[in-house]
Formats: sequence, C-alpha cells, structure tokens
Amino acid sequence: MSVTDELLANNARYAETFTGPLPLPPAKHVAVVACMDARLNVYGALGLKEGEAHVIRNAGGVITEDEIRSLAISQRLLGTREIILIHHTDCGMLTFTDEEFRQAIHDETGIKPPWAAEAFTDPDADVRQSVARIKASPFIPHTDSVRGFVFDVATGKLNEVA
Amino acid sequence: MSVTDELLANNARYAETFTGPLPLPPAKHVAVVACMDARLNVYGALGLKEGEAHVIRNAGGVITEDEIRSLAISQRLLGTREIILIHHTDCGMLTFTDEEFRQAIHDETGIKPPWAAEAFTDPDADVRQSVARIKASPFIPHTDSVRGFVFDVATGKLNEVA
Repeated sequence: MSVTDELLANNARYAETFTGPLPLPPAKHVAVVACMDARLNVYGALGLKEGEAHVIRNAGGVITEDEIRSLAISQRLLGTREIILIHHTDCGMLTFTDEEFRQAIHDETGIKPPWAAEAFTDPDADVRQSVARIKASPFIPHTDSVRGFVFDVATGKLNEVA
Repeated sequence: MSVTDELLANNARYAETFTGPLPLPPAKHVAVVACMDARLNVYGALGLKEGEAHVIRNAGGVITEDEIRSLAISQRLLGTREIILIHHTDCGMLTFTDEEFRQAIHDETGIKPPWAAEAFTDPDADVRQSVARIKASPFIPHTDSVRGFVFDVATGKLNEVA
C-alpha cells in the first residue's frame, strides 16, 4: 500500500463528517503565504477553519512570480485584503546555496535550471525580502496589511519580524 | 482588531499544546500540490499530521516554474518520492480567462503582467496537464507515483482523475 493510498483512506473518513459546500471567497479575507515545510500545519497553527483563508505555499515561503500571480487572483477576484507571510526556523533553504543546487542538477542531468532555488541564510531577512517584493509589485492592489512571521518549529509560536 | 491579530491569538493557543521539534524531512516522503482554495484543508482532507508531507499550494494547484523548483527541492534535498496533485470543484480559475484577467490588470495599472493567470475550463483536464508538466520536467527525478485528484467541495471527497 503506497502512502498515497493510505492518505486516500484518511480522506474517506474525513468525508464522512464533511459538510459543504461553503462559499468560494475566503470568509476572513486573508491570504497566507508559507513555506511547504511538513512541520508547519497552517490551518492548525493559525486556528483556521475550512473556507476562511487562501493558503499559498512553496519551498521557503518565498515570493516569486507565481506567488504574485496567486496573490493577484486572491485579492482582485476573491476579495482578500490582508496578507500573512510565514517562514520558519530550521528551514531546508538554509542548508544549501542557489549555486550549489544549480550545479548539482547540472552535474546530474546536464541541464542548468532556468530558475534560482531561492535559498537564504537568514529567515528574518528573507521575510522582509518577501514583504518588499509584494509591496513593489504593481499587480497586488492591497498592501496595507502585509505582516511577516517566523514559525518556531520547537515551540509552535509565530514571531513577528516584518 | 485585524484578522491577522485574531489568527495570532489562535496561534498562542496552538503553541500551548505544541511539542517539537520534529525532523526536517517529511516522514511520509510525499509532496502535495494543491489549489490555494480556502475550502481545501489539505492536512484535514488527507489526515496528515505535522511533519509528514510537504504542501505546495497556489491559485489553481497548477504546475509552473515555481512548483518545479519546490518539487525539485522536496525530492532532491528532502527525500520525498510520491506526488499528490489536487484541484477541486467550483474553482475560481473556472470563472475567467487568462486574457480577461490580463486585460483587467492592464486597464487598471497600465502594465501587462508578464505571467499567464493559468485559468482553466475543466479541472480534470488541468490535473492531467499538471501531471504531464511534472513528468516532462528534467528536474524532478521521481515520477513513478504522481497521482491527480479533484476534491469535491460539496462532499469533501477526492476523486482520482490522473
């Protein structure tokens, strides 16, 4: 039995008590951008319930073109107004450099990736980088409430850094 | 009190019973790519616990360059082997076209976005598009288990389509 099959069995149990559908626009008008890290359960850590917030996640919780796309759709078409950014302690992005990752892929596949890995050395500074990228984008109309946090994987606490 | 402040109060309660840290690599060696939709609680719908899976999310749950970046990091540096893709019914991406969204932004800001909105008309077909993009990437080494689902926002069930 694959892990995927195991998670599908969990889904069957989830559906037994599920009641829907809820409305499409997020009830709390908030979008969260967070790292993909397995230890960061965004719904749990923020006490979110189904239907309340958009959740955007990637390696690092960084802001690239695709997060600008998602935030533009979130705000312009689905009415969100506040943005919460979450990086975390003990992040995998601290363990390598963009150039090392690019070179390893090049060595193995013969092809250099056209994208940067977006590694960083200081989560606090990278949260501030992400806030700055959002505020500099002409495509994100609402930037009055863009707040940035580092989630502590030891304590479960969010510490505000931007 | 902003919504962000309200969610921070929830976080303080979450941290009271949190025990960490867990190891960095996902315990179930799986990465999930899902739509950012508020009604899709990935941890809940798959019965995931903290520390078990990478969760990557964006508008539509589509595969663009940034999801290839995240999946490459997930598999190459953090040992995941299975990929689960999740789109859903009643998706906002069904309500507009790439050209309409681009034109609306152009009209309002005077600037055409350099990215496509990645809208689609058929979630099943777009899941298959996402699977194909992953399998075509030279940067994702493990594609034996890439399975695609549409989450039903009325019933909470995942239906396999690819």
